[in-house]
Amino acid sequence: MKAICPGSFDPVTRGHLDIIQRTDRLFDDVVVAVGRNASKNYLFTPEQRVEMLEYACRGTSATITIIDGLLVDFCAANDIDVIVKGLRYASDFEFELQMAQMNHALSGIETAMLPTASKFSHISSTMVRQIARLGGDVSAFVPDGVADIMRHFLSGE
Amino acid sequence: MKAICPGSFDPVTRGHLDIIQRTDRLFDDVVVAVGRNASKNYLFTPEQRVEMLEYACRGTSATITIIDGLLVDFCAANDIDVIVKGLRYASDFEFELQMAQMNHALSGIETAMLPTASKFSHISSTMVRQIARLGGDVSAFVPDGVADIMRHFLSGE
Amino acid sequence: MKAICPGSFDPVTRGHLDIIQRTDRLFDDVVVAVGRNASKNYLFTPEQRVEMLEYACRGTSATITIIDGLLVDFCAANDIDVIVKGLRYASDFEFELQMAQMNHALSGIETAMLPTASKFSHISSTMVRQIARLGGDVSAFVPDGVADIMRHFLSGE
Amino acid sequence: MKAICPGSFDPVTRGHLDIIQRTDRLFDDVVVAVGRNASKNYLFTPEQRVEMLEYACRGTSATITIIDGLLVDFCAANDIDVIVKGLRYASDFEFELQMAQMNHALSGIETAMLPTASKFSHISSTMVRQIARLGGDVSAFVPDGVADIMRHFLSGE
Amino acid sequence: MKAICPGSFDPVTRGHLDIIQRTDRLFDDVVVAVGRNASKNYLFTPEQRVEMLEYACRGTSATITIIDGLLVDFCAANDIDVIVKGLRYASDFEFELQMAQMNHALSGIETAMLPTASKFSHISSTMVRQIARLGGDVSAFVPDGVADIMRHFLSGE
Amino acid sequence: MKAICPGSFDPVTRGHLDIIQRTDRLFDDVVVAVGRNASKNYLFTPEQRVEMLEYACRGTSATITIIDGLLVDFCAANDIDVIVKGLRYASDFEFELQMAQMNHALSGIETAMLPTASKFSHISSTMVRQIARLGGDVSAFVPDGVADIMRHFLSGE
Repeated sequence: MKAICPGSFDPVTRGHLDIIQRTDRLFDDVVVAVGRNASKNYLFTPEQRVEMLEYACRGTSATITIIDGLLVDFCAANDIDVIVKGLRYASDFEFELQMAQMNHALSGIETAMLPTASKFSHISSTMVRQIARLGGDVSAFVPDGVADIMRHFLSGE
Repeated sequence: MKAICPGSFDPVTRGHLDIIQRTDRLFDDVVVAVGRNASKNYLFTPEQRVEMLEYACRGTSATITIIDGLLVDFCAANDIDVIVKGLRYASDFEFELQMAQMNHALSGIETAMLPTASKFSHISSTMVRQIARLGGDVSAFVPDGVADIMRHFLSGE
Repeated sequence: MKAICPGSFDPVTRGHLDIIQRTDRLFDDVVVAVGRNASKNYLFTPEQRVEMLEYACRGTSATITIIDGLLVDFCAANDIDVIVKGLRYASDFEFELQMAQMNHALSGIETAMLPTASKFSHISSTMVRQIARLGGDVSAFVPDGVADIMRHFLSGE
Repeated sequence: MKAICPGSFDPVTRGHLDIIQRTDRLFDDVVVAVGRNASKNYLFTPEQRVEMLEYACRGTSATITIIDGLLVDFCAANDIDVIVKGLRYASDFEFELQMAQMNHALSGIETAMLPTASKFSHISSTMVRQIARLGGDVSAFVPDGVADIMRHFLSGE
Repeated sequence: MKAICPGSFDPVTRGHLDIIQRTDRLFDDVVVAVGRNASKNYLFTPEQRVEMLEYACRGTSATITIIDGLLVDFCAANDIDVIVKGLRYASDFEFELQMAQMNHALSGIETAMLPTASKFSHISSTMVRQIARLGGDVSAFVPDGVADIMRHFLSGE
Repeated sequence: MKAICPGSFDPVTRGHLDIIQRTDRLFDDVVVAVGRNASKNYLFTPEQRVEMLEYACRGTSATITIIDGLLVDFCAANDIDVIVKGLRYASDFEFELQMAQMNHALSGIETAMLPTASKFSHISSTMVRQIARLGGDVSAFVPDGVADIMRHFLSGE
C-alpha cells in the first residue's frame, strides 16, 4: 500500500512529523506532498517547505514532492492507494470529512485519518507562523533543527 | 499489517460493513471484534451479533470474534497493528480521539479512522434498534439479509 | 402545511414553548407530540407532560397528543408535512441531523430546524429535572404556571 | 408564507438546489437571493451566479435576485416571512445560529434550517471552486448542465 | 476570591489534579466538592472518592467535601465566588456552558473554565473506570498512589 | 492576581464588555489589550478601538493598551498572571484551547475562559462590522454610546 501525506507544511511541525512517521510504519511507501495553492498566503516558498521537510524526515523512508494540480490526479498518476491526514480537533474533522468525501467522489480514493498524539495536539502551523513572525522561539513546536532553518530563511528575506 | 474493527454491532449496519470492506482493502488481515460490555444494554446477544456479522461479511476476508477484556490486551495477544474506527460526526471524533489516545498510552497501539461514506452517514445503530423495536422496516440501513435475521432473532424472544 | 413538534417535554420549558409558538406562526396546523419511550426514565408520566403542555400552549392553536409508535408512522397516518425541532447547540444538531436523515429515508418526511432564541439557549430539560428533584426553583426556566403544576405532581408522588 | 434562500451560490451546487426545491414545497413563495459582499473573493460575477441559478431552478417556482444591502432590509421591503438555510455540519450550525439570532435581533425575522440530504452532505462550494480552478470535473457536484455553463464562463475569462 | 471545583471524581485523575492545583494558584481558597447524584452509577462511594482526593491533593490548600443538594445553594451558604471547571473537548464545553448559564440564572454565580493541559487531554474518568474494571493498569492516568488505593477499594468489594 | 483580556475589539461589543466587567470582579487588576495584527483587515484603527474601549469601560478599573508583539512577552513584562477569554461557541473553544496551550508552552502562563452570558451569545464583532458597513443599526450589540462613536469614525473615513 502506498500512502500520501498532503499539506501546506508552512512550516512542518512536530505534529506533522509524528503523522508522517506513523504513516511510514503503517504503509509500504509514503509520499509527503507540499501544496502550492495560489489563493493561500504562505510564509515560506514551496522549495523552502520541501527543504525543511527533507531535513525533518531524514530518518523516515518518505519521499517529498510538490503538487500543483488536483491531489486526486497526482494520486492516480502515482498509484497512491490512500491519503493520510492528521486530526487534532472536531473542526479539523469536519473539514477533512468533506475533503475525503469529495476526493472519493472524484476518483474513488481512500482517506485514512490519524488522531494526533495528545502531546502535539496544541501545535498549529498558523500559530507557529504568527510566533515566528513576531520573533518568538518556536523550537518546541517544530522538529529538531527546523527552527534554525526557519530563522535562516526568514532573515534572508 | 493486521487490523481490528472493534464495535458493538448491535446490529451491524451498512455503514459498519463499508468500514470493514475498506479496512479489508487497506490492510492484510482484518479481525472484527464484538464487544461484550457489562454496563451496556444490548438488543442482541454477542452470539447473535456475531451471526449477523458473519452473514454480512461473507464476501470479505474478515475474521469475527468476541472480546471480553481490554481491547489493547486482545491486540497484544493477537499481533494486531492497528485499530480501525469509522467516523460519522464531530462528536464521534471527540470520543474516538480520547479512546485512541488512551489505548496508545496503555500499549502504544495505533488507531486509524476512516470517514464514513456520505450515503451511509445518517445510519446509526441506536436508531436502527429503536426502529426495529417499534416494528419499523430497517432493511435500508443494514446489509442485505440482515433485516430478516434481526426479525427472526426478535420474534424468537 | 401541517407541522409536528415531537419531544419528551419532561417538563416543557420556555425554550420548547418558544419553538411551538414560532412553528404555529410558520405553518397552518401544529401537533405537539409527547413521546413514550420504554427505555427512557421520565420524571413525569405522559399524561402529566400533556397536562403541562396544554396549560403552557393554551394561547396557541397547537393540538397535544401522545405517540407510542414510530414518529414517521404517526406522520403518515395524520398527514403531517414537516417535523419541527428546536436547536440549541452543535451537539443537538448532530443528533437531529441523523434523526432527520433516518426519518427521511424511512418515509420521505421533511424536517425543519428552528434555532433557539438566545435568551432561552441555556435552558435544558435535563437540568430543570435535576434542579426540581433537589427542590430548587425552576420557575425562570418553564412557562408561567408550569412550576406550580410540577410541584403539585412531584409532591403527589 | 414567503421564504428566502440567501447565499453566495458561487456556483450553485446539487446541495443548494435540493434546499431550494424543499423550500419550494414547504412555503408558498421562494426568493433565491445572491449576495454581493465586497469583502468576498468570488469566482463568478453576481450576474453569472444568477444565470446558473436560473438554469438550475427552472423546474421550481423560485424567483432569483441579487441583494446588495442588509438581508433583513430586503426581507422587510419584500414581505419575506422566513429565511431558509441548509445545514451540513455542526460548524455550519454555529455560524448560522449566530446569523439567525443577529437577524432576529435586528428585525424579528424568523430563520428555519433544513438539514442537508446525506447524499449531498459532502458537497462544498469552496471545494467545487478549487476543483474547477484546477480543471477538474465538477459535474457530479452541481446541477445538470451547470458544469457546462461554468466552463463557458471560466474559459471566457 | 473563593473557588469551588465540583465533580464526580470517580476516581480523581491527573487531569483533575492539574485543574485543582491551577485553581489553587489563581484563587485564595479552593473547595473540591464531590457530587452524590442519585441517578448516577458510581464505581466508588463518595467517601472513597473523598479519600482518593485527600491523598492526591495533600500538597495543595484545597478542602475536600461532599455535596448533596444544589451546587448553587452550597456556594451561597459557603461564600463561594466562582465555580471552576476543566475543559478538554468542544462537547465538554457545550455541556459546561449550559450548566454555567443555568447556575448563573439560579443565583448569579460566576463560572470560570480552565483548558486542560494537552498532556492530560486524553484522560477520561469514564475510560479509567472501564480499564480498572477490566483489571488494566491505570497508574498513568491517576495521581501517584491513587491506583493503589483504587485497587485496595476494588478488591475489598 | 493580574488579568489580561486580549482581543481585536473591532469594535468592542456588549459581550466583550460583560467579559471585562466579570474579569474585573474576579481579579485584582485588569488590562484590556488591543491587538494590532498585520495580517488582519480591521474596520477601525487601534487608536479608534482603544477610544471605544475607554468609553465603554469607564465604569470599570480596567486599563486599556495596544499590544504589538507576542502576548506572552507582554504578560511577562507586565507581571500578568492570567489571560481571560470569553467563549461563545464550541468552535471558539477549539481555537482558544490551542491558543491557551501554545501560550502555556511558550511561557507557562495560565488562561481562564469565561462562558458568555446567554443574552449576549449571538453577538459577533464580525457581524457587527458587516451590519455597520451596510448602514444598519448596531446599537443593540455594542455598549451604550459606542454606536455613535462608530458612526462618527466611519463617516470620517
